[in-house]
Amino acid sequence: MISLEVFLRLLDLGGTFVFAISGAVAAVNRRLDIFGILVLSFVAGTVGGITRDLLIGAVPPAALKNESYLLTTVIAGLLTFFFYKGIDRLRAPVLWFDAAGLSFFAVAGTEKALEFGLNPLMAALLGMVTGIGGGMVRDLLLIEIPQVLRSDLYAVAALAGAAMVVLGQMLGLPPGPSALAGGLLCFGLRFMAIRHGWSLPVAHLSARRRAEIQGEVERKEKERR
Amino acid sequence: MISLEVFLRLLDLGGTFVFAISGAVAAVNRRLDIFGILVLSFVAGTVGGITRDLLIGAVPPAALKNESYLLTTVIAGLLTFFFYKGIDRLRAPVLWFDAAGLSFFAVAGTEKALEFGLNPLMAALLGMVTGIGGGMVRDLLLIEIPQVLRSDLYAVAALAGAAMVVLGQMLGLPPGPSALAGGLLCFGLRFMAIRHGWSLPVAHLSARRRAEIQGEVERKEKERR
Amino acid sequence: MISLEVFLRLLDLGGTFVFAISGAVAAVNRRLDIFGILVLSFVAGTVGGITRDLLIGAVPPAALKNESYLLTTVIAGLLTFFFYKGIDRLRAPVLWFDAAGLSFFAVAGTEKALEFGLNPLMAALLGMVTGIGGGMVRDLLLIEIPQVLRSDLYAVAALAGAAMVVLGQMLGLPPGPSALAGGLLCFGLRFMAIRHGWSLPVAHLSARRRAEIQGEVERKEKERR
Repeated sequence: MISLEVFLRLLDLGGTFVFAISGAVAAVNRRLDIFGILVLSFVAGTVGGITRDLLIGAVPPAALKNESYLLTTVIAGLLTFFFYKGIDRLRAPVLWFDAAGLSFFAVAGTEKALEFGLNPLMAALLGMVTGIGGGMVRDLLLIEIPQVLRSDLYAVAALAGAAMVVLGQMLGLPPGPSALAGGLLCFGLRFMAIRHGWSLPVAHLSARRRAEIQGEVERKEKERR
Repeated sequence: MISLEVFLRLLDLGGTFVFAISGAVAAVNRRLDIFGILVLSFVAGTVGGITRDLLIGAVPPAALKNESYLLTTVIAGLLTFFFYKGIDRLRAPVLWFDAAGLSFFAVAGTEKALEFGLNPLMAALLGMVTGIGGGMVRDLLLIEIPQVLRSDLYAVAALAGAAMVVLGQMLGLPPGPSALAGGLLCFGLRFMAIRHGWSLPVAHLSARRRAEIQGEVERKEKERR
Repeated sequence: MISLEVFLRLLDLGGTFVFAISGAVAAVNRRLDIFGILVLSFVAGTVGGITRDLLIGAVPPAALKNESYLLTTVIAGLLTFFFYKGIDRLRAPVLWFDAAGLSFFAVAGTEKALEFGLNPLMAALLGMVTGIGGGMVRDLLLIEIPQVLRSDLYAVAALAGAAMVVLGQMLGLPPGPSALAGGLLCFGLRFMAIRHGWSLPVAHLSARRRAEIQGEVERKEKERR
């Protein structure tokens, strides 16, 4: 039987792998070369955790102390490079693995932040950052507004899971069960979002204001050229 | 009567609030969902200070140690979400509050960097970063070239205020008056820039070179698609 | 005769200067004002090293402790501002200086990471980041996909040079010769890439998938407006 520690490490590398695949696929779609693909794999898989570690003062970050993260993202990148067609067809299952990765990252990130003495609210925030940071930087490197800022219930699912962990700690519950509850809550919310298209509201804009903004954006695009 | 410390804390949160409003308005304009709006509020309000704290080794950054920053930016985001029309009408006064926020951030950022032992020149630079960092990352997340790099006297106003603080310290003046002088200098420069359209020069380009660049940019835009 | 330390410092500032020129030229091309030009100079010249220092815990980063980096990048920015036409004509020699800067940064970055106790593989990665980080953030600030992710042999040259340094240390060789070998390897690879157009492969995409992606990208561009 494998120990709890090994199990958690496997989950962590599993999450890294799935996120890395998302980075590699995005890189192939934008015609980056093999080096660009590997960079996007590494970024998508590890930047959430690296950001958390920088912010809590855990340097060098875990992803730079242990080679297994780099190795995991390189494998994900190479697989995508050579078998893009096959991986692209797996979009539906990858979505579920991604939800699992998000859940794990949110919970584990929160626990690490609590360990480093952050207060509960901020620890939950950093758990969320662990889950969504990699995807945000992946999108920025490809010059796209981060999906997580405009799409369905993604960051909120991570935040809810993270909050559950924090609540458990505040109530003095043992860490195992509250981690599990947090992970399940995050995964469940992602499930509902994917299945039922749950999403968050956008602000109301009058037609006139919308036309104005349209004009401003077009002016800016023009200036950029 | 309130103490100096409370007064400074109020100024700090006030600056955070005004900057957060700018982030939230930009997010609404780009049709982000409510989560995206809150992220942009938080980023615009706190990333300048977070960047400074990371660079001087003050981890976890102040904005992650104390919940009042998060709370302030959440309130700014929600107000913008629900009362966008009203807030959008307040553009002119918001500009003045923004100038006040910039002045405070530049001065307070410089003082914190000096406290952490940075040399005077670099402390002034970090004061400026405290003032402009949030707006820069706000623009990057929305895939726009940061306004501060191409607009009127903004960063230079922050830098001048920061330099005044540093100069005061080098001359052995008490910190209070030189902070006040720095803040007033920054605010005054912003006032002139807004009122009289003061701006910085751009480099001269021959018509031929300009046409060449135009061509390159269009080629790149095409490649991106 | 100058000492080794002075020689290395000169190399370091030389690399910073060449990279800063690349930032300033890009800023002029995009019509940023003089402040924007100086920011891009500083970013292109120092952000690679600053990122490395943040990740290994060397705060404040070297580029913020010592004013000579800022001074170097300001000179590069002002020269570009006033003599853009002349500097723009020097593109071919600048390419060679850039290769020299990259080689030096990759080698020196790796050595600093090893000094701070990172394991060999990660030290090489951080050497590469030292070399390419500035250019990546330069491109991002101008809202362009980083060149290094899609162009000829650039990052790989830096990585090869960095790997040579690490290999030398693992074999117990004295640091001088292996640094020299690493630098020469990086420079040689850049030489071949520039002269013979060496580049890295991109993944194969079927025509159908390519058309699909094209459609998605156009939809996203539209949404952004």
